[in-house]
Amino acid sequence: MRENDFLNWLSSAIPSDPRVPINVGDDMAAVTLDSYKNLALLKIDQALDKVHFDLAIHSARAAGKKAVNRCLSDCAAMACSPAAIMLSVALPNTADENFARELFLGCKQAAEKFNCPIVGGDTSIWDQRLAVTVAALGSSHNPPLTRSGAKPNDAILVTGKLGGSILGRHMTFEPRIHLALELAKLLPITSMMDLSDGLAQDLPRLCARSKVGAIIAPQQLPIHPDAETLSVNDNIPAGLHALADGEDYELLFTCPESALPILFPSPGAALPGNLAKLAIPITRIGTITPETTLHLLGPNDQLLPWPKAGWEHSSK
Amino acid sequence: MRENDFLNWLSSAIPSDPRVPINVGDDMAAVTLDSYKNLALLKIDQALDKVHFDLAIHSARAAGKKAVNRCLSDCAAMACSPAAIMLSVALPNTADENFARELFLGCKQAAEKFNCPIVGGDTSIWDQRLAVTVAALGSSHNPPLTRSGAKPNDAILVTGKLGGSILGRHMTFEPRIHLALELAKLLPITSMMDLSDGLAQDLPRLCARSKVGAIIAPQQLPIHPDAETLSVNDNIPAGLHALADGEDYELLFTCPESALPILFPSPGAALPGNLAKLAIPITRIGTITPETTLHLLGPNDQLLPWPKAGWEHSSK
Repeated sequence: MRENDFLNWLSSAIPSDPRVPINVGDDMAAVTLDSYKNLALLKIDQALDKVHFDLAIHSARAAGKKAVNRCLSDCAAMACSPAAIMLSVALPNTADENFARELFLGCKQAAEKFNCPIVGGDTSIWDQRLAVTVAALGSSHNPPLTRSGAKPNDAILVTGKLGGSILGRHMTFEPRIHLALELAKLLPITSMMDLSDGLAQDLPRLCARSKVGAIIAPQQLPIHPDAETLSVNDNIPAGLHALADGEDYELLFTCPESALPILFPSPGAALPGNLAKLAIPITRIGTITPETTLHLLGPNDQLLPWPKAGWEHSSK
Repeated sequence: MRENDFLNWLSSAIPSDPRVPINVGDDMAAVTLDSYKNLALLKIDQALDKVHFDLAIHSARAAGKKAVNRCLSDCAAMACSPAAIMLSVALPNTADENFARELFLGCKQAAEKFNCPIVGGDTSIWDQRLAVTVAALGSSHNPPLTRSGAKPNDAILVTGKLGGSILGRHMTFEPRIHLALELAKLLPITSMMDLSDGLAQDLPRLCARSKVGAIIAPQQLPIHPDAETLSVNDNIPAGLHALADGEDYELLFTCPESALPILFPSPGAALPGNLAKLAIPITRIGTITPETTLHLLGPNDQLLPWPKAGWEHSSK
């Protein structure tokens, strides 16, 4: 691969953008930030071949798309808009220029969906497998939503359906940025995060940051059909897949119970306009508690212990 | 390595910082930006084992330090202060927790030298070699210095001494941030960049962005003693090492000739206060030309062709 040819192609593939007064050709890029009180929101995330994707199965374009979407999902988690992303790519020396282009186009496709400019990058070639790192700058008109504001008696909710993403959704998910921005407008959200490692691992993190606990009703978990499919094959109940599988990239959030009628108006009543348009289900799955422990609610309302992270592997 | 133990250690190793209202425990970090007209400056840079360092020779701490300093050198190049950095680390599965800590401490040591908080990170483990990616957010009170402002007849200058960094300086260099900020205060700098790939490759990039050319007097290049040492071994003239070797991480900049007396007062006169304290030599090496070609000045003032990038390898 002729590196300069690729870099020339790259700069032609990145359109000029009034929000990016200094672009990829300089030592750093400059981005105008329409920020909340001069707060810059930052995130970095990597996607590695045979860890986060598998080039034996997935295309370069799919890998690039996932690498960017993983990072953008964290923008959704904070209810902010991505203002810019940067890419760092360690390319295997077996990759040709077409591979590099496809990878970049996957990244670009994901970023463009959210009108997010790619403002910088670094490409190296080595004799190891592909590593793609994405850094995002977020900008928010409102105070960003963090993991630390959940209060006792808050309702716990999730977007979408959970479990079984390994069957394909872990490559094709869409970051819930638009939904997060809508929810943040509609609801007095007290805390939010995205589900990347699975509810069983992620909810304890939110609770730890908020210094609270939680009770989850497993029978209320929105189970994805993929979790059902997996269940048929591995005999692990679909509900446990929904609880423990990673890479759902759905939103987990809390709000006061008093706000629930906004999300769930009386039967027959219309959903709030913007929310109805989004057509992504939102489900209440539990309640925040003052004690800093987490429990599942058993069939007879007894409190069951929280499943340990990774239990689904060690139990086999 | 127990990942959670390392993450716990990591969060204790990152002190709380009033400039970082939301820290590494959330989906994104928030940084207060004391910025110039809401401009955020961004950079991403990777350092790979056996490409940018060699763990068979260099310690984890030295690798971390270099990874961060490479990125901070681009802050110097724009004459901005680093407001925050983020780290993404693909750790080989043969690394133990001590390795991961040492790597992080190297990163931290480099960042602390410039009072720059580490605000986020991502650690994965894989069966490949170490890859460290650093993303920096820069903040500037002045318009950032770019590569695109050089004007015909501007003087071309470099900081420090060039060549032979492979003997060790490529791991131990110090980003010229303080010097860049001082220079930007003292001089009407028209363009600036850092020398990462060597003058022979980097100056054409600056010229291309500025739509100008350049004439360099090779006999005026400040030659590092390391270039002399290399020359004894490989019989390539030290001056060619100074011209073509990479990883000097010195500053290359231009300013109007009329400003030169600020840098070079009459013999015997004192240097401007701040600059004298820095004690890093600054050398004029050439002049910007209106034609968009680059030349070396020969011993009889004839114009010689610019050395091709990588010539020193292909000529052997």
